[in-house]
Amino acid sequence: MSSAVVVLSGGQDSTTCLAWAKNRFAVIDAITFDYGQRHRVELDCAAEVARRAGVRHHRVLSVDSLRQLGGNTLCGETGAQLGATGQGGLPNTFVPGRNLLFMTLAAAWAWQLGTKDLVTGVCQTDYSGYPDCRADTMAALQQALRLGLELDVVIHTPLMHISKADSVRLARAEGGLELLAWTHTCYAGQVPPCGACPACQLRAKGFAEAGVADPLLARLGGAAR
Amino acid sequence: MSSAVVVLSGGQDSTTCLAWAKNRFAVIDAITFDYGQRHRVELDCAAEVARRAGVRHHRVLSVDSLRQLGGNTLCGETGAQLGATGQGGLPNTFVPGRNLLFMTLAAAWAWQLGTKDLVTGVCQTDYSGYPDCRADTMAALQQALRLGLELDVVIHTPLMHISKADSVRLARAEGGLELLAWTHTCYAGQVPPCGACPACQLRAKGFAEAGVADPLLARLGGAAR
Repeated sequence: MSSAVVVLSGGQDSTTCLAWAKNRFAVIDAITFDYGQRHRVELDCAAEVARRAGVRHHRVLSVDSLRQLGGNTLCGETGAQLGATGQGGLPNTFVPGRNLLFMTLAAAWAWQLGTKDLVTGVCQTDYSGYPDCRADTMAALQQALRLGLELDVVIHTPLMHISKADSVRLARAEGGLELLAWTHTCYAGQVPPCGACPACQLRAKGFAEAGVADPLLARLGGAAR
Repeated sequence: MSSAVVVLSGGQDSTTCLAWAKNRFAVIDAITFDYGQRHRVELDCAAEVARRAGVRHHRVLSVDSLRQLGGNTLCGETGAQLGATGQGGLPNTFVPGRNLLFMTLAAAWAWQLGTKDLVTGVCQTDYSGYPDCRADTMAALQQALRLGLELDVVIHTPLMHISKADSVRLARAEGGLELLAWTHTCYAGQVPPCGACPACQLRAKGFAEAGVADPLLARLGGAAR
């Protein structure tokens, strides 16, 4: 029976990928990383989305290594500023190696489950500042995982080259809009979402361009702009 | 000033690599992974070796992810049997993704230190059963790290293609024999080493073939065979 492991953050992109995966694999397992993110609501969202999607196993893996290795803006106390730059001209929300680490752990779990297919919502269209979200990085990592695990790992990235608007259209086409009502996006961590932070604005723009009402706002209200 | 990050387990191979690195880089930082290994003496050995080698920073990083992901013989309660096979015909001491994970974390730390050179004692000669120790895996991972971190990562593997005997000769040539007196090898976790387990026997064979007295046995005594 075909199965896949979906990396599920509780956000819009990974949830869209979960809907995509449900239409392509008979069994879905989901893995969420608790890496000390400032907004714990993300973990609650991931659990709710996983439950509603009927995944077989939802694994929440604590990863303390990144916090131990030091400061960044998505875990810890400093406020995130999308668009601001940090070391090496990279966005100051860049956590070095984060996606590489998460995909490696997801693959290790997949190995134990006897699964070779991984699904992740990384996208190089809107967030081109993150080098570990790009297609060439994922292709190289897939090769490293294949060799290192002796497993024919396939990293599926349904959103890699599409816009936020097309991501919304994809969610609709895959029957995933209802799941999106339970996702988290806001960088300010607010529920209902603040509507003003760059993440809320990016999400709103995608829904607007796709001509779709955001089911999260329909459920919760909040500052739709 | 040139610097390198050495992945230091406290064993013979990584310590030999540390001696190798000291002759090639002005500054050495060492990283050791505390992943719940059964034999805590390894961590003590790593600290002692790092201190005696005069490394700048010795980072001990707790990695709980592998233990959370489930059983294997090197962390947890089950006894390790070198040569025994587990899932997929791999050695039952195989921890899926372990080296990939460790190298990724080492690279993330190197990124923060502004270092691009990583040194690891992986070797495909004697332990060909571990797919994540092989040269092609390390080459693919190097490429994934380069792309994912936007850093010209170089993974140095001085022991990759040499025998245990040549590894001992290398340690002598690099002035590292003294450091080897403080390393740990025994799978049974004994100090002095048991001399009977496969790891002790492999070490003894290497020293014997190289015609070098093991400085660990000279320091501690133990069952030399």
